[in-house]
Amino acid sequence: MSFIETKADSDFSIHNIPFGIISTSQNPAPRVATRIGDHVVDLSVLAQAGLFSQIVADAQGVFSQPSLNLFMSLGKPIWTATRKHIQKLLSADEPTLRDNQDLIQRAIFPISSIKTHLPANIGDYTDFYASKEHATNVGIMFRGKENALMPNWTHLPVGYHGRASSVVVSGTGLKRPNGQRTVVKGEAPQYGPSLRLDCELEMAFLVGTGNDLGEPITIQNAKNHIFGVVLMNDWSARDIQAWEYVPLGPFLGKNFGTTVSAWVVTMDALEPFLVDGPVQDPKPLEYLAENTASAYDINLEIKLKPAEGTKYSVISRSNLKYMYWSFNQQLAHHTVNGCNMRTGDLCGSGTISGPTEDSFGSMLELSWSGAKDIQLEEGITRKFLQDNDEMILAGWCEKDGVRVGFGECHGKILPANK
Amino acid sequence: MSFIETKADSDFSIHNIPFGIISTSQNPAPRVATRIGDHVVDLSVLAQAGLFSQIVADAQGVFSQPSLNLFMSLGKPIWTATRKHIQKLLSADEPTLRDNQDLIQRAIFPISSIKTHLPANIGDYTDFYASKEHATNVGIMFRGKENALMPNWTHLPVGYHGRASSVVVSGTGLKRPNGQRTVVKGEAPQYGPSLRLDCELEMAFLVGTGNDLGEPITIQNAKNHIFGVVLMNDWSARDIQAWEYVPLGPFLGKNFGTTVSAWVVTMDALEPFLVDGPVQDPKPLEYLAENTASAYDINLEIKLKPAEGTKYSVISRSNLKYMYWSFNQQLAHHTVNGCNMRTGDLCGSGTISGPTEDSFGSMLELSWSGAKDIQLEEGITRKFLQDNDEMILAGWCEKDGVRVGFGECHGKILPANK
Repeated sequence: MSFIETKADSDFSIHNIPFGIISTSQNPAPRVATRIGDHVVDLSVLAQAGLFSQIVADAQGVFSQPSLNLFMSLGKPIWTATRKHIQKLLSADEPTLRDNQDLIQRAIFPISSIKTHLPANIGDYTDFYASKEHATNVGIMFRGKENALMPNWTHLPVGYHGRASSVVVSGTGLKRPNGQRTVVKGEAPQYGPSLRLDCELEMAFLVGTGNDLGEPITIQNAKNHIFGVVLMNDWSARDIQAWEYVPLGPFLGKNFGTTVSAWVVTMDALEPFLVDGPVQDPKPLEYLAENTASAYDINLEIKLKPAEGTKYSVISRSNLKYMYWSFNQQLAHHTVNGCNMRTGDLCGSGTISGPTEDSFGSMLELSWSGAKDIQLEEGITRKFLQDNDEMILAGWCEKDGVRVGFGECHGKILPANK
Repeated sequence: MSFIETKADSDFSIHNIPFGIISTSQNPAPRVATRIGDHVVDLSVLAQAGLFSQIVADAQGVFSQPSLNLFMSLGKPIWTATRKHIQKLLSADEPTLRDNQDLIQRAIFPISSIKTHLPANIGDYTDFYASKEHATNVGIMFRGKENALMPNWTHLPVGYHGRASSVVVSGTGLKRPNGQRTVVKGEAPQYGPSLRLDCELEMAFLVGTGNDLGEPITIQNAKNHIFGVVLMNDWSARDIQAWEYVPLGPFLGKNFGTTVSAWVVTMDALEPFLVDGPVQDPKPLEYLAENTASAYDINLEIKLKPAEGTKYSVISRSNLKYMYWSFNQQLAHHTVNGCNMRTGDLCGSGTISGPTEDSFGSMLELSWSGAKDIQLEEGITRKFLQDNDEMILAGWCEKDGVRVGFGECHGKILPANK
């Protein structure tokens, strides 16, 4: 369908057309690109050639930015028109780009030759807690069965503010954090490297256009403000978190690093995969009430390669459709008090756990707080992450022969500072 | 001491020399200024005249910025040298500026003729919880006497991430937030305007120079990274907060707005007011251990003008010296896990309550959760804030005839959206 070859199982078919930030050794300035199959298309070069002149005013300026923020700030009609136009430019029966060898030479690179960068300049990062299964599992482990799910949980999408500065792009190594934690419960805390380092399987949306302080985004309008979605690994030091988190929430147990995938998949690309979400009981208050399908059927996986092993093992298979509160509900709730969102703000879903043990979205749940081993290939086991372990989160939609995916969200745990 | 008149009780004597961002009707571009007495000095104009050429490379570029970030990123030796140089330029016995009427005309304006702006481009905003009296008081009200102070509190400066986008400068009106809250405890939540809208008396420091991800700032180095201090009102909707905050901390109860004062008082200006802080028991772990005085003797006041009244009443008198954990300890703790700070990051102290009832830093504490009236002048009372109430936080140091202060942190509560 495109003149650029894409394998049948590629996340980046012509139905996708995600946006990201790349650089090359020849041109180290980060700039906007899309990806198709195993190639990237430098949109700043296409813009320079005038190929977006009918769609985006000052396209060259917009696509030469080191983040997607300026493009995202232009609003949904521009996002939609741009993606459609790129689909047309890349299609097999459209000669404009296909037959311009010079332009292809300058604008299209194999994925192996480019570097990806953080796609957005993130002003604020919020993390929700929108999977009922995850909230229940963690609640049981942190507070016991009786206090597992707090009374507010089924009434609102619980969320908290995270740290924007330490959000990094897929492929970035992160040091194991040092910090204060109790090694034996009830005893005085000690300083040292986290002994219970964990992942969290999440997806996150990027706010495309925001709102003024004091002017909420309604549930009806929410979808027009959301630009796209990435995979997110909300690395968590469970021992640091458990000691510090009362009463004001997670802090140093989380803010040493959060990894997002490099390619932002647009809501337009995901629209064919809309499904009904979980039944919400009690019925949400009016400002959170939706009357159309707003969940997405996105398959998710956690893959772990232990330091002493040679291959990745899938340790969890989950799906975004399990998420109880939708992205639209999260955004409407976030702004109901007048809180202002800005272009580039990142909102994580919270860990996406499914109903079965093999669909849990964190090692905390998979090992049930370290009570049992997670079995990997080659006879290796883990309860939590060890130094030099590598992890990949993956996500993709598939329907009627169309596949749209997210690529990978990769991270490696480096040893702690001495 | 300066050729510009400063009253004896001015917060902005020549011993202060704070930094802020101003604009004027004649030149609406926000830019860097200092304040002395009731005048501001436009540093971009002085830089253009070459007066900083020996101190700051590209001073004109640095002081023409709409935030202090570029100046702050230059590091402590430059901050110190710049302030000293300004003190010299403004002193009565230095003719350079004093005798240049044309330059005075272009660079010095009465405070009544300028507008102040948010002093920094805030990447991340963190709020600590560093007053033992406040944490104890709120703990009793939210969780009962037995669970008031959590076991971790005396071991580490508890903190959480706040919302950077809604930090506004003194003088900005804020709408009363709508949201979800339980009106009768135990019953289903309702949507509506907050019925328990409160202030929090805080101070906050601005990070001048940050650290790379994975490279902590040591307790010994912390003071070199802190640029200066502002007053901060951490407005809080107690009913929204009480319903939402378990288990991940405050969110919509806080992120509808946070007000900071316009003039950043440097650590150099505050150095004469260093005092020993509260005795810390248990002794902090080594990464938090300090061996010099690191608390500041800063008098603080909350003043409230009720909508139906004509004047401000002082409702609380507190002092920053009551804060249990120092700014240096907060910064060392924040980065001990490798979390990266960036120039312009804002770190709030948490509510600064003193030991006596008239020194509590929030109306929640002053009215003991609404159990008693706060008495204002003209026979008016309050438990929480009503629409069109105005509040001023004030702060100043005084010693040996030298006064250094913060001006005011003003806010007005506007009616909620219908």
